[in-house]
Amino acid sequence: MADEDDEITFRTRKWVRPEDLNPNGTLFGGSLLRWIDEEAAIYAILQLGNGRVVTKYMSEINFVSSARQGELVEMGLRATAFGRTSITLRAAVRNMITRRNILTIEKVVMVNVGEDGVPAPHGYTEITYNRDRMHLD
Amino acid sequence: MADEDDEITFRTRKWVRPEDLNPNGTLFGGSLLRWIDEEAAIYAILQLGNGRVVTKYMSEINFVSSARQGELVEMGLRATAFGRTSITLRAAVRNMITRRNILTIEKVVMVNVGEDGVPAPHGYTEITYNRDRMHLD
Amino acid sequence: MADEDDEITFRTRKWVRPEDLNPNGTLFGGSLLRWIDEEAAIYAILQLGNGRVVTKYMSEINFVSSARQGELVEMGLRATAFGRTSITLRAAVRNMITRRNILTIEKVVMVNVGEDGVPAPHGYTEITYNRDRMHLD
Amino acid sequence: MADEDDEITFRTRKWVRPEDLNPNGTLFGGSLLRWIDEEAAIYAILQLGNGRVVTKYMSEINFVSSARQGELVEMGLRATAFGRTSITLRAAVRNMITRRNILTIEKVVMVNVGEDGVPAPHGYTEITYNRDRMHLD
Amino acid sequence: MADEDDEITFRTRKWVRPEDLNPNGTLFGGSLLRWIDEEAAIYAILQLGNGRVVTKYMSEINFVSSARQGELVEMGLRATAFGRTSITLRAAVRNMITRRNILTIEKVVMVNVGEDGVPAPHGYTEITYNRDRMHLD
Amino acid sequence: MADEDDEITFRTRKWVRPEDLNPNGTLFGGSLLRWIDEEAAIYAILQLGNGRVVTKYMSEINFVSSARQGELVEMGLRATAFGRTSITLRAAVRNMITRRNILTIEKVVMVNVGEDGVPAPHGYTEITYNRDRMHLD
Repeated sequence: MADEDDEITFRTRKWVRPEDLNPNGTLFGGSLLRWIDEEAAIYAILQLGNGRVVTKYMSEINFVSSARQGELVEMGLRATAFGRTSITLRAAVRNMITRRNILTIEKVVMVNVGEDGVPAPHGYTEITYNRDRMHLD
Repeated sequence: MADEDDEITFRTRKWVRPEDLNPNGTLFGGSLLRWIDEEAAIYAILQLGNGRVVTKYMSEINFVSSARQGELVEMGLRATAFGRTSITLRAAVRNMITRRNILTIEKVVMVNVGEDGVPAPHGYTEITYNRDRMHLD
Repeated sequence: MADEDDEITFRTRKWVRPEDLNPNGTLFGGSLLRWIDEEAAIYAILQLGNGRVVTKYMSEINFVSSARQGELVEMGLRATAFGRTSITLRAAVRNMITRRNILTIEKVVMVNVGEDGVPAPHGYTEITYNRDRMHLD
Repeated sequence: MADEDDEITFRTRKWVRPEDLNPNGTLFGGSLLRWIDEEAAIYAILQLGNGRVVTKYMSEINFVSSARQGELVEMGLRATAFGRTSITLRAAVRNMITRRNILTIEKVVMVNVGEDGVPAPHGYTEITYNRDRMHLD
Repeated sequence: MADEDDEITFRTRKWVRPEDLNPNGTLFGGSLLRWIDEEAAIYAILQLGNGRVVTKYMSEINFVSSARQGELVEMGLRATAFGRTSITLRAAVRNMITRRNILTIEKVVMVNVGEDGVPAPHGYTEITYNRDRMHLD
Repeated sequence: MADEDDEITFRTRKWVRPEDLNPNGTLFGGSLLRWIDEEAAIYAILQLGNGRVVTKYMSEINFVSSARQGELVEMGLRATAFGRTSITLRAAVRNMITRRNILTIEKVVMVNVGEDGVPAPHGYTEITYNRDRMHLD
């Protein structure tokens, strides 16, 4: 898994705040999932050049470690496949203080939708790194 | 699935607010996952009679439909298995207006932890419905 | 009051979080009132089959006990009267850990409004438990 | 009531934001009650010179008008009575754009508590306007 | 600075809550700046009689002291200059418990915009204290 | 400025949500400043290898453009100077859709504090990019 994670670009970092804690005083899974979903939506919007995307599917999630208040976590994503109307991402979250992996989600599928809210072809087949797409559309 | 869903008790209802919308103007997956995780923690605390529980695992999540602003969703949970230190739940979310299922998560595993944050045996093997457990501990 | 409370259906449960505490470190009345009002709006929407309801009146509120961080509270409502454009509810909140009543509000009046924001007749005279109303309208 | 309102000092103003709206698109009663309770706690802390106060009672609340998104409301409080361990306030909220009263609460009772969380005598019998109390304690 | 501060009207007070703390456990600068900007927008709306204002500029900010959880801060503003489409404010924040100044911002420039989002003349040249402007427009 | 901006690493991206809008319906300055301050705290914690940092100073802020709901912004930071107990950062925010600069803050000074809350020497004189510092301390 180390090899695969090296291909993920970690961008957004979060400081674990009091409102992000579970009853055990560690990072609440719900906060984490909310952060990942927002990050995935942003990633998909940039890759597909369309501001209307929705979350369609997440593969199983194993919470292998956690984080405590005041620790920092970083989230990473990488596109792994393009469907006709969808993009599939791989997501990972790491604790920047303990250096441990917190979780990995093999597949997060985001779907491109039109103004009518119905899935629409996006026309892409590979990742772009130059962020130009928002301007072609 | 209808049969299985009938065994789930739907309790908490949410009104979809502006801060719960995704870029498509429908219910944001991240809000939904945060709601479910909080609901699962509460359910586990009541079943295990211990205020310290953490989310350990979620099986795959298929977002089969959504909800719009102002619509109501209801969340349901049911314990399906007890491990030595864990409890496994089945979760479902429904749109109360359209009557459609929004998602089902077959397995949400919550773990009972001690004051040291380490998994601890909880001593239960079946669901209780009388809510007495918080008082035995 | 025990008899009356038995008629109330307790549904939504909340885990008391750090952002819900008052300066004394116990459950902040403001969080509690916000939770109750949202719950009452949802209850009224389902009973009246109309997504547009507003809070019109609350009778006196006596905070007879409280809750601490990490404790669970449950909220219950029951329709007690129907006016031409309004529905009157009885609300109660209990601490699930200490088993004590936190507060009871004898009357919460919610009003049914039309698209113009003006009170409109709702046509109901008794409680329904089958949730069909959202589909008749 | 106009006369009495003139004795209230209006201080905190709020801009009605999207997250403060009810299903009718007007100011949500729950947001309003949360704002008032926080304001009352601050007022009581300053009057009693003690950072530990809790809300004990609110008399009936009549929502006589409302506010829309982007409108401004102002909240006012005035101490009306001192008990041995409590302070009673009168609260009012006005829409600054329409000039209409939104609600008045005749009695909000805040209780002074000690470090043990139990009501404690505060030793005051009248309002102070010079804010010196926090420094006597 | 004392003389100048005396001319500022301190209105809104905030109770420092857990979600307002920085990693050092004192008042987070980000919360403070958010509070000030909302307060400045409200002040400008009332002075200019127009609900559409935007923040254009803030002069340097020196955080000279802070506040801890449970302490109270008060925010004050005063108009110091009127441009053709703008209003310039002076802002100050004080800790009500320690009596120390937390920060002063010499210039906060808010701009009056039309329905098209473009700066528009507001027609005022001096401060008003009677709040009548929202009703002239 | 273009040259200098190229040296800044843009990391965290935000999707502009309804709760981030000002009365004009564009990105609220207060949300923006809160995001920047959190980002600066995280950057300083990683550079100084200490979880306790506070914001001490921000130079003037010119809001040169804005963003609308649903647009994406990205925030960038770069250390420009090290003092004995402080680190000075340069901050920039860009609209990823319009490609325009939203604001630049030439100096954000974060101070390293000890467990007693008093400024403490951090021992660094240059930027590190390998994130090892959290593990030396």
